[in-house]
Amino acid sequence: MKSRVRKAVQDLDAYMPGEQWREPGVIKLNTNENPYPPSPHVTTVLRDMIPVELTRYPDPNATRLRQALARLHNGDLANVFVGNGSDEILALCTRAFVEDDGVIAYFEPSYSLYQVLADMRNVKRGPIELNADFGWPASEMAPGACKASLFLLAYPNAPTAMVYEPATIREFCRTFEGVIVIDQAYVDFATENCDVLALEFDNVLVVRTFSKSYSLAGIRIGYALGNSELIEALFKLKDSYNTNSLSQEVALAAVKDHQHMLKNVAVIRATRERLAQALQDRGFLVLPSHANFIMAKPPSLSAEELYKRLRAMRILVRYFSGRRTAEYVRITVGTNEQVAALLKALDAILRAG
Amino acid sequence: MKSRVRKAVQDLDAYMPGEQWREPGVIKLNTNENPYPPSPHVTTVLRDMIPVELTRYPDPNATRLRQALARLHNGDLANVFVGNGSDEILALCTRAFVEDDGVIAYFEPSYSLYQVLADMRNVKRGPIELNADFGWPASEMAPGACKASLFLLAYPNAPTAMVYEPATIREFCRTFEGVIVIDQAYVDFATENCDVLALEFDNVLVVRTFSKSYSLAGIRIGYALGNSELIEALFKLKDSYNTNSLSQEVALAAVKDHQHMLKNVAVIRATRERLAQALQDRGFLVLPSHANFIMAKPPSLSAEELYKRLRAMRILVRYFSGRRTAEYVRITVGTNEQVAALLKALDAILRAG
Repeated sequence: MKSRVRKAVQDLDAYMPGEQWREPGVIKLNTNENPYPPSPHVTTVLRDMIPVELTRYPDPNATRLRQALARLHNGDLANVFVGNGSDEILALCTRAFVEDDGVIAYFEPSYSLYQVLADMRNVKRGPIELNADFGWPASEMAPGACKASLFLLAYPNAPTAMVYEPATIREFCRTFEGVIVIDQAYVDFATENCDVLALEFDNVLVVRTFSKSYSLAGIRIGYALGNSELIEALFKLKDSYNTNSLSQEVALAAVKDHQHMLKNVAVIRATRERLAQALQDRGFLVLPSHANFIMAKPPSLSAEELYKRLRAMRILVRYFSGRRTAEYVRITVGTNEQVAALLKALDAILRAG
Repeated sequence: MKSRVRKAVQDLDAYMPGEQWREPGVIKLNTNENPYPPSPHVTTVLRDMIPVELTRYPDPNATRLRQALARLHNGDLANVFVGNGSDEILALCTRAFVEDDGVIAYFEPSYSLYQVLADMRNVKRGPIELNADFGWPASEMAPGACKASLFLLAYPNAPTAMVYEPATIREFCRTFEGVIVIDQAYVDFATENCDVLALEFDNVLVVRTFSKSYSLAGIRIGYALGNSELIEALFKLKDSYNTNSLSQEVALAAVKDHQHMLKNVAVIRATRERLAQALQDRGFLVLPSHANFIMAKPPSLSAEELYKRLRAMRILVRYFSGRRTAEYVRITVGTNEQVAALLKALDAILRAG
């Protein structure tokens, strides 16, 4: 019998999220979550939530949260869109800025969701190979060289954790004809960001999330900053009530306690430097990390083998089988205790050979 | 300058949600929310939420909630999809089951979101006029008469609150070539439902929500029941983590306390019957309601005028300016106290003439 499912959907390979293994005792360094709890104000918000508030629809425009974010980034309310995780925002961008005969471009390797988003939107993929050292491919990105409706650009990149020169990105924004979405999921762990580009150019959005630096992957809140015409298009296409009341309130409490997030980020950056050094001391090739994870190539066994042995010891890291990523494991920067346990396990594995 | 926003999105008239007027003292009978609080277990869940749980991503498949819903409806896990409100599910259906040259059909008048969903999907609208009495249009719905990829069918219908014969719907499901999505947002307030059709036919999904009977519009959780091939297509197209941890837990607590919901529904139905009678006693034409709202045509002034006068008295009802709905106001069934205040206001308005 003929399927009633759209042809492009039948052929689609869905995005595969990292494994969520919830048994006690497992050390989970595979999905780049923040190991430290969110602001204590989050607990207060949940404890004080009046049940009858939940009988009402949420604010469809998340106005109070957007006001707080606009203040944080020196923008106006009309420059801010709040989504059900930054995933929703990226998906909306593919529907807002790409005609049916358009192309969605992205670097290779980068966040593996980007090619799935192109497939979901049923338009042509436009992968652009990064340099051999995972750096910016200058000739492919020269003015006029990249033709696409939408460029999805992760800064810092995932899974490499590396950044590009902001001046280089600015030059690309100045000449690219389509919309550039700079996905800054991990940017609080870096030293620079691209926010200014979103307010400077009318074809640039930056996207941020509460999932990483704010320790709130569970609430699904992300946001976009940029030109009000682009932001308005996202509003037109979103579900009427795309973010729920609880998550709006929790995110607002977290933004108001911005210092708590910065403190957690500082701890994670310090741990990251120690972990990077410890991996190098053990012969790993470590890519320079500006995120809360480290991409590292093991010295004397394959990345896949290392992933499996760690897994057998109940330590989860991420392994990507892709052509250019298969030599590396991606390790989330956990607590100091988790990192110590990881290093102990690595030593045992490397000794065993 | 040329806009970078997709042409179809520039032309789009977005869905306009009912007004959320949050001042104290306002009687809000305009968005069909439940006036009674959700299960007390909801409060417990929120109070006991461990903050570090929120650092983790939610279960992308909402497995525990889907298990509970599968049990409730005597289906399997593979027959249940959980979405970020039923709005998300309806939008996913337009992308899962409609090719670019397809048609999305729906009754006129019906939930005004349906035509917006066709516009968002950038495919042809297929409105089918209901009978003069807002009943099932037998000839337009005869076998083979309606050609569409997707039929969005509200049962009970909104904003009329009326139902159709389940046997009539079954006959349509048997012969329609596309997918039928039966939107049962208000079905707990009716006496019958169409759940059995979703498990019987491979081209039928029913959609339900926690927003109405469960008193949880704020959490944005809806679900679909039906054939596993259709359900799987929704999984492929959803955002990776489409529902957040808090809402999953809250909805699970509410399902487990199903009796609490049934008790609230019984009270609302009793109030509805009294309100319908009181409106008829005052000369209103009242459509037979199977939902938690009443569509009624006032006796001696226009519906728009009545809406405005009630609004001036800080009572919000809903007015739809559409061709076939402009003679009616839609009134949410509130608490007995709210209904008493409404009737008092109506008496004053009708006396004033």
